[in-house]
Amino acid sequence: MTYDELYAQIKKKGSFLCVGLDTDLEKVPACVKERNVTMSDAEAIFLFNKDIIDATAPYTVAYKINTAFYEAPGWEGVMQMERTVIYLRDTYPDIFIIADAKRGDIGNTAKQYAKAFFQRMDSDAVTLSPYMGGDAILPFLSYKDKWVILLALTSNVTAVDFETMPTVEQSVYQYEPQVQVPLYERVIRKASQWGSKENIMFVVGATRPEQLARIRQICPDNFFLVPGVGAQGGTVEEVARAGMNSSCGLLVNSSRGIIYADSTEKFAETAALKAEEMACEMRRFLEK
Amino acid sequence: MTYDELYAQIKKKGSFLCVGLDTDLEKVPACVKERNVTMSDAEAIFLFNKDIIDATAPYTVAYKINTAFYEAPGWEGVMQMERTVIYLRDTYPDIFIIADAKRGDIGNTAKQYAKAFFQRMDSDAVTLSPYMGGDAILPFLSYKDKWVILLALTSNVTAVDFETMPTVEQSVYQYEPQVQVPLYERVIRKASQWGSKENIMFVVGATRPEQLARIRQICPDNFFLVPGVGAQGGTVEEVARAGMNSSCGLLVNSSRGIIYADSTEKFAETAALKAEEMACEMRRFLEK
Repeated sequence: MTYDELYAQIKKKGSFLCVGLDTDLEKVPACVKERNVTMSDAEAIFLFNKDIIDATAPYTVAYKINTAFYEAPGWEGVMQMERTVIYLRDTYPDIFIIADAKRGDIGNTAKQYAKAFFQRMDSDAVTLSPYMGGDAILPFLSYKDKWVILLALTSNVTAVDFETMPTVEQSVYQYEPQVQVPLYERVIRKASQWGSKENIMFVVGATRPEQLARIRQICPDNFFLVPGVGAQGGTVEEVARAGMNSSCGLLVNSSRGIIYADSTEKFAETAALKAEEMACEMRRFLEK
Repeated sequence: MTYDELYAQIKKKGSFLCVGLDTDLEKVPACVKERNVTMSDAEAIFLFNKDIIDATAPYTVAYKINTAFYEAPGWEGVMQMERTVIYLRDTYPDIFIIADAKRGDIGNTAKQYAKAFFQRMDSDAVTLSPYMGGDAILPFLSYKDKWVILLALTSNVTAVDFETMPTVEQSVYQYEPQVQVPLYERVIRKASQWGSKENIMFVVGATRPEQLARIRQICPDNFFLVPGVGAQGGTVEEVARAGMNSSCGLLVNSSRGIIYADSTEKFAETAALKAEEMACEMRRFLEK
């Protein structure tokens, strides 16, 4: 999917919501597991996803598949992850699919991950970690209309361990005054040399709206994937005010707040309501 | 496996070699694929691994399973990854198994990854990326006798993008002189607060022996997983001289140089020869 196509979907649906499919077999409602006693445990993962997707798709432009939850049950879980993507592609061809994999490895290994997420799984985007530098990112950027979503400033508490640490340029002039820039800003500036707004997004947490506004100044055009709304304390309003650009430029993710809002037989209806609530709030900012 | 048990294995085998199972279906020798025409493509991955393991195990203390190569073919590949670990556990119970996954995500997601690699897959260690800070590492350290192998200074060219970037402490005293320390050193110092030599190793590339010596000073006791010997230009001798400690403290990895040394029917014999050559060189340093 291209930048313009993504923005067109956002306008059409009046929403920049991304629903996170962090599907934990232990949290799948009993009613799903009981629906078919002959199925394997892992199949309940797909059936749950299918119901959540069908209920929330009208309010959603993207689904984010958190690979960890599908890897924990082993190959059976990975199979259900693949079924989920196939279902999304077949049933909702305009949906943007994110593999939230946070991979980061180099050369040949990076190529294998790109193959896993862009060819085998056919997702539109994959989240990556910048630690190892360009070698870990560039192999993904050769895919047409596919996206890298690079970790920049995340929503978690220990983002302060390294992400916000002040860095200085390696300079040959020892006595030159040195500008200190947080690591996440170096990541964003460097990544902007590797790709463009057409193939790189950044992960910027909703829990730090003042930094979100600052990052929007550094890269006015890129999309941001924003976790941390809801359970972690960020709000749609803060994020929209600090981070929106003229093409929206935001995908705001909610996982647990939508998919586990209700554990009864009405789980899908409740998920739809929660997604609709968020989309309604988003629409206010899109219409401005 | 504990620190002492790992060192005991190294002494017993006279080797600190780790063989990297970067098994690419496209590079599996034709003779393996032809051996059983009724098997699925992916099964050739396991059969190749099995032959390589049986041939190299006498010279090897660890196998490193590069998850990317098993994810690229989808769930069928993940199944062969699991079969490989089961085979290792059943046949060579004293082998140290590393899931080279380079994951890095927080909270609940980190717990799911720990489940995937320590419970479902029962590997001894998993490689992790430090970018998101302690939240991404701590959930793994609660497993007894399991290990985190944290990316510190890697062997690739773009390690200079961020890993070696000078950082300064966030200080309340604005005019205090600030010591500049490369990012990888911050990672090592911070991680040394999270765990101990009993549950944290660091990835330190063989291509930078002078930094390897410096890192050995910072953490005298931890094991290092050292990639970059062979194809990338590092040598066993340089690594041993710069990085060894009184408990060896090194696992030197070789992947392609061993497993793809020969593509004929003699691929396993050649792999054994290559592994033996490396182990012989290593023995010299262990006997000193």
